[in-house]
Amino acid sequence: LTAGPGRALRVRYRLTPEPGVDPVARARHLAREQTVECPEGIAPEAEERALAAVEEIAARDDGSFDVTLAFPLEVTGGDLLQLVNVLWGNVSLQSDVRLERIDWPRALLDRFAGPAFGVEGVRRLCGSAPGRPLLATALKPLGSSPRELARRAAEAALGGVDLIKDDHGLGDQEWAPFRERVLTVAEHVARANRASGGATLYAPNLTGPVDRLPERLETVAEAGLRAALVAPMLLGLDTVRALAATSGLALIAHPAFAGSLVTGPGATGHALPPGVLFGDLFRLAGADAVVFPHAGGRFPFALDDCRDLERHLTAPLGALRGALPVFAGGIDAARLEQVIPLYGADVVYLIGGSLFLQPDVRAAASELARRVRRVPPRSAP
Amino acid sequence: LTAGPGRALRVRYRLTPEPGVDPVARARHLAREQTVECPEGIAPEAEERALAAVEEIAARDDGSFDVTLAFPLEVTGGDLLQLVNVLWGNVSLQSDVRLERIDWPRALLDRFAGPAFGVEGVRRLCGSAPGRPLLATALKPLGSSPRELARRAAEAALGGVDLIKDDHGLGDQEWAPFRERVLTVAEHVARANRASGGATLYAPNLTGPVDRLPERLETVAEAGLRAALVAPMLLGLDTVRALAATSGLALIAHPAFAGSLVTGPGATGHALPPGVLFGDLFRLAGADAVVFPHAGGRFPFALDDCRDLERHLTAPLGALRGALPVFAGGIDAARLEQVIPLYGADVVYLIGGSLFLQPDVRAAASELARRVRRVPPRSAP
Repeated sequence: LTAGPGRALRVRYRLTPEPGVDPVARARHLAREQTVECPEGIAPEAEERALAAVEEIAARDDGSFDVTLAFPLEVTGGDLLQLVNVLWGNVSLQSDVRLERIDWPRALLDRFAGPAFGVEGVRRLCGSAPGRPLLATALKPLGSSPRELARRAAEAALGGVDLIKDDHGLGDQEWAPFRERVLTVAEHVARANRASGGATLYAPNLTGPVDRLPERLETVAEAGLRAALVAPMLLGLDTVRALAATSGLALIAHPAFAGSLVTGPGATGHALPPGVLFGDLFRLAGADAVVFPHAGGRFPFALDDCRDLERHLTAPLGALRGALPVFAGGIDAARLEQVIPLYGADVVYLIGGSLFLQPDVRAAASELARRVRRVPPRSAP
Repeated sequence: LTAGPGRALRVRYRLTPEPGVDPVARARHLAREQTVECPEGIAPEAEERALAAVEEIAARDDGSFDVTLAFPLEVTGGDLLQLVNVLWGNVSLQSDVRLERIDWPRALLDRFAGPAFGVEGVRRLCGSAPGRPLLATALKPLGSSPRELARRAAEAALGGVDLIKDDHGLGDQEWAPFRERVLTVAEHVARANRASGGATLYAPNLTGPVDRLPERLETVAEAGLRAALVAPMLLGLDTVRALAATSGLALIAHPAFAGSLVTGPGATGHALPPGVLFGDLFRLAGADAVVFPHAGGRFPFALDDCRDLERHLTAPLGALRGALPVFAGGIDAARLEQVIPLYGADVVYLIGGSLFLQPDVRAAASELARRVRRVPPRSAP
């Protein structure tokens, strides 16, 4: 990661300086804040090594500016958290700036393993042919017993759902302690798979306490499971990276707690576009699939955000495997057919609450699975 | 954590429903989103156990509503991350809501150990008498060699600074690899302490990769250090909790990456007030001190935010120790005397860049230390 030509991390920020603030001076402050974090004159040699360069400032019609900073690669030290800190550390505390896009240099990408399974690996785990979207559901609600959850999971599996993930609120509550819940649900899903000849994948939720993760991973292995749900902004992005590298599990990332960070037409965050946080960064951290609320549901994201996320997760990014967007948050049977033609085949549609509301969950799941297999996804561009 | 009278977690949210949305229905959705996360009718028994109750809805003059939800304690399962998920998980993705305050039930607080050192413990580590604020500085800049950093740290220590923390951008960069940097700086600070008879505390930055934390902790122990800097929103809040519980180090928490989460007059976040995130939650996670940008510097927080943070960190909170606010982000010698009378004695003032800009760092530090000892803090209320 030695500095040198073509070995910089280029990041574009959107700057809206307060009235009277010189945008060039503000851009230089930004470069300083995110690297040497000190006034000029303390250590000229260190600044020569580590200070980001202001490469471009372009005025926009709305009075804001597009500012491109070039960071010497070595400021990250090859560490994911220091990378995030360089991108959005101190300036997260300033209200006149947000991050727009990152040009990833190959030398930096090559420091990260990314998804251990990726799109093809997840398909393999749940026995899906390429060329069609996957169908997922969320096991709920919190407050249910392991048996109740297992019964619901088995119905969904018998109906042909590809992937069942725990609701991200399921932890180690007394109503359904982690070990008992995971073993019971896994057993019922395995039995359903044997009965149907299917390969529904069950992904239990891995959350805190972090010092119990090793014990939880043992339970997951004991249950014969190959996937887990994680919430990177709760668990910590680098804990997810470490899990991706060592657990042998396909990881489905959940956006809990992360919403306040993302920008977008209906969002109020001022940090990062959904494609950068849930796309670039989650993929770099090793998420094999990323849950995101689809437009038109009960979350304020736009269709463009969803398309952008699909692109960030599936487009080439160094040697990193692609990851699957998991569109959720209010997709039901009625909307499924309208949504499928908008995306390519490497997408997961998650139908949660509305599925378990049906009197015959198995039949309803089966009908959803048929639709996902029948409606042609958008053909490759 | 069994449910029962007086055993609920009460949280007040500020709701600004879209035009035409019924606030009562919206409040009920909020309660549902953060617990059972499913439509009514799937599992009435589970809902009886886990669904939050809407306890109060009060209209405000500005068209918004104060909504108080009461969560059954057991939804958290006693886990910090699931607690945060309940407070601000899915609704982080919705733009019409923010969190205002939390009434902490004793039964929940008692599940967490909080700061291992607290205000008195940190004073003990740096040999400070009670009744006066502490003086801190930040070791910088990124790009310096271990020797350059060590020389600066020694000057600050000789000048009587109580606490020297690494800049939060110092990781494991080739210019100053973690082990070499920490051992070199620690040695110079120890030598300065022997020369001056002081007890300046040096806190190196602990960041990723998380799987190298055990090795880093060994280096810190080998260097004879008793404190470390952590950025909870990067490292993960529960990783910080685990470090507080097991490392034997006093932890100074840094707000990097966390800014996009906090509300405030000049902030654009829509999540939590600084007092709740940096006060309640960081304290619960075991931070002994919390760095926060003081009003009037280069970050957009107000004086009220700073006072509020002091209160959240130092006021009684179950059996948890108090923690020190570390006001930073542009305090210099000139402002120090104006700021000290605004706060009590249990506060740290961090003067970073402007200190190392002085031609004689030791003399400048010494003058700052004199001021911190001389100006009377606000007397106890």
